[in-house]
Amino acid sequence: MAETADPAPLLTRDAAVLLEPLRDGVPRTRAELASLTGLARSTVATRLSALTAAGLVVPAGGAVSSGGRPPACVAFNPAARILLAIDLGATHGVVAVADLSGRILETESSEISIADGPEPVLDWAIRAARTLLERTSRPAADLVGIGIGLPGPVEHSTGMPTNPPIMPGWDRFDVPGYVRPRLGAPVLVDNDVNLLALGEHATAWREHSDLLFVKVATGIGAGIISGGRLQRGAQGSAGDLGHVRVPFTRGNPRHGEPGADLEALASGPAIARALTAAGTEAATSNDVVALERQGSGAAIQAIRQAGRDLGEVLATCVNLLNPSVVVIGGSIARAGEHLLAGVREVVYGQSTPLATQHLAIVPAKAGATGGVLGAAIMVIQNTLDPGAIDAAAGAE
Amino acid sequence: MAETADPAPLLTRDAAVLLEPLRDGVPRTRAELASLTGLARSTVATRLSALTAAGLVVPAGGAVSSGGRPPACVAFNPAARILLAIDLGATHGVVAVADLSGRILETESSEISIADGPEPVLDWAIRAARTLLERTSRPAADLVGIGIGLPGPVEHSTGMPTNPPIMPGWDRFDVPGYVRPRLGAPVLVDNDVNLLALGEHATAWREHSDLLFVKVATGIGAGIISGGRLQRGAQGSAGDLGHVRVPFTRGNPRHGEPGADLEALASGPAIARALTAAGTEAATSNDVVALERQGSGAAIQAIRQAGRDLGEVLATCVNLLNPSVVVIGGSIARAGEHLLAGVREVVYGQSTPLATQHLAIVPAKAGATGGVLGAAIMVIQNTLDPGAIDAAAGAE
Repeated sequence: MAETADPAPLLTRDAAVLLEPLRDGVPRTRAELASLTGLARSTVATRLSALTAAGLVVPAGGAVSSGGRPPACVAFNPAARILLAIDLGATHGVVAVADLSGRILETESSEISIADGPEPVLDWAIRAARTLLERTSRPAADLVGIGIGLPGPVEHSTGMPTNPPIMPGWDRFDVPGYVRPRLGAPVLVDNDVNLLALGEHATAWREHSDLLFVKVATGIGAGIISGGRLQRGAQGSAGDLGHVRVPFTRGNPRHGEPGADLEALASGPAIARALTAAGTEAATSNDVVALERQGSGAAIQAIRQAGRDLGEVLATCVNLLNPSVVVIGGSIARAGEHLLAGVREVVYGQSTPLATQHLAIVPAKAGATGGVLGAAIMVIQNTLDPGAIDAAAGAE
Repeated sequence: MAETADPAPLLTRDAAVLLEPLRDGVPRTRAELASLTGLARSTVATRLSALTAAGLVVPAGGAVSSGGRPPACVAFNPAARILLAIDLGATHGVVAVADLSGRILETESSEISIADGPEPVLDWAIRAARTLLERTSRPAADLVGIGIGLPGPVEHSTGMPTNPPIMPGWDRFDVPGYVRPRLGAPVLVDNDVNLLALGEHATAWREHSDLLFVKVATGIGAGIISGGRLQRGAQGSAGDLGHVRVPFTRGNPRHGEPGADLEALASGPAIARALTAAGTEAATSNDVVALERQGSGAAIQAIRQAGRDLGEVLATCVNLLNPSVVVIGGSIARAGEHLLAGVREVVYGQSTPLATQHLAIVPAKAGATGGVLGAAIMVIQNTLDPGAIDAAAGAE
C-alpha cells in the first residue's frame, strides 16, 4: 500500500467477518449471525460488542417469533462513518460525501479541465471536499477514506496515473501523497471505468458474480467483475479494449484494414468521422448524441453499426469471461437503444450458447453520479471487506 | 454444494487463516505467525493447538537467534492427510494419491474411452483409486477429498458435465453422486483446462495473481486465474475460446470467412487439414506432432501460422485481462517452439504496451501429470483456503 503511516483500520478482520452478513441492511438475530458465519454464539457476542462500541452495529426491532419474548435483532449502521468520493473526468468533476452504504449525502460539481495538471485539479477537489465536510458537521475522525476516479490508466497499488493519454502532467504523480495530508484520510485511486463497474455491480447486480461493464464515449474501456471482485490485472490495465482489433464483419468496409481497432470504429469521435464522411457534419461525441436525439437516420445507422463493431469484440469477451451481465454505459450508450441493439445483434448471434443463454445485455443504471458512487464503493470495500483487511495486513 | 451430507470440514475458518502463511512450507515462529496474520499471540497459540492436534502442524527446528534459547518453530505437515486426483481425458485416464502439498504419492494410468459413458469410465477410476489407497495403507479417515477433471464443460457447483461434445452419455450425469458413496469423500469436478491452469499456477507461477492458460490440442480452451483465483464465469464456461472469431490477418486467406473460428484455424485437426490441403498427408493432432518432430517444413510453417491465428485472439485476451503470464500447453504446444513463436509474434506486436511490457508467454511446465496435479490443487484449495471454507459455510 502507498500509505505506510496508516492508522489502525476501522475494523479487525474478525469484526469484518461478522459485519459482512449485516451489510445488506437486513437486521438479524445473534442466532442468525452464528448460523450465517459458522461462528460460536459466544464469539458472535464478543465481536458484536466491538462493533456496537464502534457504532457500526445498532439494536434493531425484534424478529417475528412464535411465542415468548421476541429475540433482539441487530443492524448495520452505515451512518456511523463517512467517506469522500471524487470523480474527475476530462472536463467535469464531482465530489461527494457518502456513508458506509454508498448513499450520497452531499455533492459539489464543476466544469474542470483535467489537462490543467494534477495540482490545480486536485486543489479544486480538495476545496470542494472541505466545503462538503463542513456542511456535514461531522468530526474529522469520522472520515474513513477517500476514493478518487481518474479518466486514464492508474496503477492502483500506488495510486499513480501511468501514461494517461489525455492527462498531461499527471504521469506518475503521487495522488495519494498530495491529497492525504490535505484531507486527513487514506486515499485510493482507480480509473473511472473500473469505478463505474464497481458502482453498477454494487447497486444493481450485487447477486451476479460475473459482470462486464463497457463505457463507450470519447474512448472505449471495460471494467471486469469476476468471482464477485473487480479484476485489475497484473499492471492494472485490465479492460483496455480500445485498441483491440475488430474481427471482420459484413457491412463495414473499414474492417480488416491496418489500424481498425475498436476505438477507431466505435468510439464517439469515430462515429462522428463516419457521419461526416457520409455527409452529416459531426465532430464530437456530443454532436453524435445530439443528432441521435433529433432522430437523424444517418446517426442512428452509424451508432447501430458501432454497436455491431463493439459486439464483435464483446462476443470474444463473453466467451472468455462468461459473465451473466454486460452493462453498456458512457455518453453514446446513454443517447438511446441503438448502440445496445447493435451489440445484442452480434453477441447473441456469435457467442456460444452456454455463454449467452443466461446473459443480459443492459444499459447502465447510474447517471451522472455513477463515478462518485463507484469511488464510494471502492472505499467501503477497502474499509469493510475481510479480504481487503487481510491484504492490508499482508502488505505491512 | 452438491454434497448436503458433508462431514465437518477438516479446518475451521479460524484455523485455516493461521495455517495459510505456513502452507509455503517455511517453518515459522509463533511471533512471526502473529505478525503475518495480525492475530494476538494468545489467539495464535489457541489455534496452533487445534492444528497440532489434527496433525496439520508439527514442531520444526529452532530459528536462528542472537542468543539464549532459540524460539521454537512450527511447520505445515502436508503428509497429515491424503486426497485422490483423477484426470480423465478422451482416451487416457490417470488416478493419483497426493498429499496436502500436491505431492503425487502413487499413480495408476490406463487407456480409456471417455465415450464409453460415465459408469464404465468412473468404475475404472474407482477401482484404480481403491488399489492406490490400499497401497498407501492409510486409514479411510485420512482421505479429505476427491478431485476429478473431465474433457468437457462442467457445472462446477454440481459437478455435472453440461452438453460435453465428445462425452456421449455424460450430460448432466451426477459424477459426485456416483463417486462419493463408492470412495467415501467429498467430490469436486471441473474441466481439464481449468485444472491445468490451477496446476501451472500453483507450481510454477504462484506469485503471479493473473495468469492465462491456453490448451491447444484437438480443441482449444483457456483457464483464467485473475486476482489469484480460478475464474469460472457465471455458468462455468469461462475460457471457452474455441469458437471465437479470429480477426483478419495477413497471410491466411481463410480469415474472415463465415465459420473461421479459432478451432477451425488453429486446433490440431485444423492444422492437419491445412497440411493435407497443401499436399502433406495428416489426419490428427498426433500426425501433426509427428511431422513437426521429423522436421517437416510444411508442418512447422502450418503450426507457426496456427500460433499467429491463436495470437490474434490472445492479443484481445491480454488487453482485456492484463495477465503477467500466458502459459501455452496441450499436445501441439508440447511438440516444439513453433506454436509459441507464432503467438509471441502477434501478441507482442498487437497488444498495448502497458499490457505486454511485463508479459511472459511460456510453454506449460507440467507434463502428463499436469491434470492430476491440478485436480489435487483444487481439492487442497477447497479444504484449506479460508475463502473456500467461508463459501461452504455460506451455502449450507
